Amino acid sequence: MRLRRIPGIEERIAADFPRLVVADAERYKGRWDQYFGRRRPLSLEIGMGRGQFLNELRLREPENDFIAVEMRNEVIYAAAEKFGDDCPNVAVISDRAEYLEYWFGEGEVERIFLNFSDPWPKRAHRKRRLTHENYLRLYRKALTANGEIFLRTDAASLMEFSLTEMTNNGFFLKEVSLDFHNSPYFDGVTTEYEDKKSAEGPIYYGRFSVMK
Amino acid sequence: MRLRRIPGIEERIAADFPRLVVADAERYKGRWDQYFGRRRPLSLEIGMGRGQFLNELRLREPENDFIAVEMRNEVIYAAAEKFGDDCPNVAVISDRAEYLEYWFGEGEVERIFLNFSDPWPKRAHRKRRLTHENYLRLYRKALTANGEIFLRTDAASLMEFSLTEMTNNGFFLKEVSLDFHNSPYFDGVTTEYEDKKSAEGPIYYGRFSVMK
Repeated sequence: MRLRRIPGIEERIAADFPRLVVADAERYKGRWDQYFGRRRPLSLEIGMGRGQFLNELRLREPENDFIAVEMRNEVIYAAAEKFGDDCPNVAVISDRAEYLEYWFGEGEVERIFLNFSDPWPKRAHRKRRLTHENYLRLYRKALTANGEIFLRTDAASLMEFSLTEMTNNGFFLKEVSLDFHNSPYFDGVTTEYEDKKSAEGPIYYGRFSVMK
Repeated sequence: MRLRRIPGIEERIAADFPRLVVADAERYKGRWDQYFGRRRPLSLEIGMGRGQFLNELRLREPENDFIAVEMRNEVIYAAAEKFGDDCPNVAVISDRAEYLEYWFGEGEVERIFLNFSDPWPKRAHRKRRLTHENYLRLYRKALTANGEIFLRTDAASLMEFSLTEMTNNGFFLKEVSLDFHNSPYFDGVTTEYEDKKSAEGPIYYGRFSVMK
């Protein structure tokens, strides 16, 4: 999605959501309990977009804590408005996923959600795909021993790539659907993009567990 | 596919294709070179149907030898007519795949093709699916150390089942396509069923290699 640049968006985020959007995430590495004021299983959404999915999930699971990584400040603002700055179980990191190990200690994350990540269809761009083995290595490190990755996408090319890449780089395939919305795994929690796209064709879904 | 019973079909096969349709396959276990008169990598199609796929493949690869396992005599006759009784690189076994280990020694088979196997969609019938772990155990034994399974199906449920079952029971996923006919893996060799079905929706494809 091409985004209109919003002048001064960084400053507006800092002013309006000083708690929610964490300025110094490195500080909480290995001790997110200090941020949330409790020790709970952490779930991560990488690329939360406008936050519909995560906001629904954190309301359904008030007992769990959630961290969103998102690099586009324009959508972070829209998402932050949904959560509110005093949201008890969400933190947002405004940065690129490649820095994951600065923010999370080993085995600190229980679930990672990858929702409609950019498929980067050209082979030359494959290293940018969020299921490339370089990212998988980061995820493996951050995940608990029984940690899981939940993937959904409408891009067949990303699904195909992810299935081979993940099962050959340290992840078991636990569940897969080639038509997620008509599968028993679908629980009705969706992203904005998903609501638009699911009428056009199938949504693919995979649940992977780490091999540790 | 429901088949019309043909009276006396067994006798007709025995009379018209005494060499091609092997009556005593156990006898060749570990020594199919004696059947073919040469030692070549063996490829197996389980459920060849009317034989269009295998006949095309054996003509493209005259240097390889092929064995078809098929339990329905009605389609065996139609396939045998394509090959001819003096076909140099095909043998047909008229039996159920569950007896595989009676016919093949360990590491005797290089490739197994599973084309449009019955998806047996009901959970109660899952053990009948040709990618159930009970069958996978037989395949692993028969396959060479770098042996491979090539799967194609139009049944999303069978594809989903096979992806999880195979990657969790001793097989690596090497290639996968959610639209095989528009993928770089498609080489134009098709089954009769495939020709009919490919207009209706995607054909799924997976290439798996054994972990030994």
